[in-house]
Amino acid sequence: MKAIMIICDGMADRPVPELGNRTPLESARKPNMDELARRGICGIMDTIAPGIPPGSDTAHLALLGYDPLEVYTGRGPFEAAGAGLEVRAGDVALRVNYATVDKGLVVLDRRAGRIRDTKPLEAAIQRIKLPGAQFFFKSTAAHRATLVLRGRGLSHEISDSDPHKTGEKVLQVKALSRGAAKTARLLNDFSRRAHEVLTKHRLNKERVGKGLPPANYLLMRGAGIAPRLEPLRNKFALNGACIAAAALVKGVCRMAGMKIVDVPGSTTDVDTDLNNEVGAVLQALDGHDLVLYNIKGFDEVSHDGNFEAKVKFIERVDLALKQLIDAADFIVLTADHTTPISVREHTGDPVPVSIAGPGVRVDGVASYDERSAAKGSLGRIRGKDLLPILTNLMGKGKKFGA
Amino acid sequence: MKAIMIICDGMADRPVPELGNRTPLESARKPNMDELARRGICGIMDTIAPGIPPGSDTAHLALLGYDPLEVYTGRGPFEAAGAGLEVRAGDVALRVNYATVDKGLVVLDRRAGRIRDTKPLEAAIQRIKLPGAQFFFKSTAAHRATLVLRGRGLSHEISDSDPHKTGEKVLQVKALSRGAAKTARLLNDFSRRAHEVLTKHRLNKERVGKGLPPANYLLMRGAGIAPRLEPLRNKFALNGACIAAAALVKGVCRMAGMKIVDVPGSTTDVDTDLNNEVGAVLQALDGHDLVLYNIKGFDEVSHDGNFEAKVKFIERVDLALKQLIDAADFIVLTADHTTPISVREHTGDPVPVSIAGPGVRVDGVASYDERSAAKGSLGRIRGKDLLPILTNLMGKGKKFGA
Repeated sequence: MKAIMIICDGMADRPVPELGNRTPLESARKPNMDELARRGICGIMDTIAPGIPPGSDTAHLALLGYDPLEVYTGRGPFEAAGAGLEVRAGDVALRVNYATVDKGLVVLDRRAGRIRDTKPLEAAIQRIKLPGAQFFFKSTAAHRATLVLRGRGLSHEISDSDPHKTGEKVLQVKALSRGAAKTARLLNDFSRRAHEVLTKHRLNKERVGKGLPPANYLLMRGAGIAPRLEPLRNKFALNGACIAAAALVKGVCRMAGMKIVDVPGSTTDVDTDLNNEVGAVLQALDGHDLVLYNIKGFDEVSHDGNFEAKVKFIERVDLALKQLIDAADFIVLTADHTTPISVREHTGDPVPVSIAGPGVRVDGVASYDERSAAKGSLGRIRGKDLLPILTNLMGKGKKFGA
Repeated sequence: MKAIMIICDGMADRPVPELGNRTPLESARKPNMDELARRGICGIMDTIAPGIPPGSDTAHLALLGYDPLEVYTGRGPFEAAGAGLEVRAGDVALRVNYATVDKGLVVLDRRAGRIRDTKPLEAAIQRIKLPGAQFFFKSTAAHRATLVLRGRGLSHEISDSDPHKTGEKVLQVKALSRGAAKTARLLNDFSRRAHEVLTKHRLNKERVGKGLPPANYLLMRGAGIAPRLEPLRNKFALNGACIAAAALVKGVCRMAGMKIVDVPGSTTDVDTDLNNEVGAVLQALDGHDLVLYNIKGFDEVSHDGNFEAKVKFIERVDLALKQLIDAADFIVLTADHTTPISVREHTGDPVPVSIAGPGVRVDGVASYDERSAAKGSLGRIRGKDLLPILTNLMGKGKKFGA
């Protein structure tokens, strides 16, 4: 038995006055999503817990059956894993921005003029060594990077060095608990060394020469300690693959032991190549029991507050999903969180969920949307219960008791 | 106020193609169950948690208000209590098979030719004494028996001696944690002594003479440590009685402090004497606030994959339940788990539940089945919440706070 889990990132919404108090899902023409609802058992789902706005990382942890309240301490490790760094249980990882500071370490630009190519700088940073821990550093997109620390006695209970504002001095990393002093010291030493290396770097001298802000400081935030996630293979007897444009989603899936499939033309926006993505999903079904397919564009248009673009993207995705409807035994259609265009941020409203496949107690719900799904027989479930519910239907349930 | 909790073991199912994609409950004529649904508040219930296939033991623990994830370590103690052995908190208990081994301790028959009368062997085993713990041994049905160890520093974290296959050598019991070495040693010594005693036993010499496999070894499995269960009397102010043919269910109820009523003609199959059982339920209401009535036959026909027999048994039980409809203030009708005839095993699909009685918020559900119940006002609940919900309605709720 095989399953596809389609996660329409931020697709769920609230009733929109401009749409006659319907949600974008209630307004869109989406025959294929509706067919999945008709074939399935429907319900609503609190990805984390009722009323708690989920992050993309915590939401996907829950959708893969982990309890985010237990395993999640910060975004860093998932960001690093998404960037392709190896992250082991106990590693501490952070998000990093290349930034511009003046001589007094006051932040002039948190993104170093949105610098694009940081590869030469990355190489210089990677040469920094300090006793007490191993450092792994990687530039990701534009001004962003990620840092992993590996060693004994590390802690994520530290403050950011990023003041999150220009015009303020960079912050010293502070230990927020007794056991975090070593980690804070290491990161302050690393930041100082990085500042020296970056200030002297040829690329930055060139940028200054051209009147561009030099990328001369690494601002750190979002420290987290990597949890020991039982791989999906052991936890649910699932061989999983992930098709997602968002690095953070890839990171969560990688840490769950899933295969990450990169798709040409796949982006986090509505311009993504849905045909290539759907093709990759179909291909990944060969050799995998579970293919997680995250479509991020919904979230982007929601953050922009553009309801017309959201309805349009729903209709475009619906067309693309036609190829997937009969592609696996089970098709799960859901969202990782609600991103109302009226709010432009993730909110804690539940999301619709539908599970179609052999043996499900089809419930008569005929439209895939927030309010129709709420009338379904699945009732109101938690995100972390979705994969146990699915694997039970797939014949992979683990009996508890005799 | 009095209540009857009717637990139709494994009655819940999935839509069956041969029944026009209806479940057995949706296909059967069952006016009395429907009447209970009509009079009650209905919902669906995850006995353990969504998607987790329950065992009979863990399911009944939950239905009696205990959290199986906290109190359950293995089937042994409940099996032993069901066999009538006294089981105290901290005792370690195991399931035992009388088996046939050759001189090299290779298992020839895991059931010793399905030997029927083991009473003389039981008596010989009961005389075995070893320093370090007390041993309590009891033959149950056919080749089965149960063993209880009582003493200091015992642990259930040990491996089985049962290789679960013929043609393999019996296994040494191994300690799976540091504190379990003593228990493992005791059980290995006990097994050796039992093998000596059984090999020399007159009954086995007679069997060998007749060409029958001797019951010359005790294979052990399913070790568990008996939890300290707060009796229903203290936990819910309930004086409980149990009518059940399944020993495991009796064991759970006994450990919860309930009175076990044995009923002539009561079996775990569809041939059970429902009239005698119903009569016993009615009688037990005199002197008890809660009578748990488990009907096991549904599970048997489901394990056989026989949907016609399942529908027929539902209709037969429905007739028998007519006498119970008005017999107590509250009637709970539910199942301990789903056993789809398409799967022939317990699965983690939720079960329907209905609670009829004074003051319940009757919800318009008019049929007792999986999908109708899902539309009820009870929503989707957990097994361990059922008894608090019932006792609250019975006026026995314990206020939390002031």
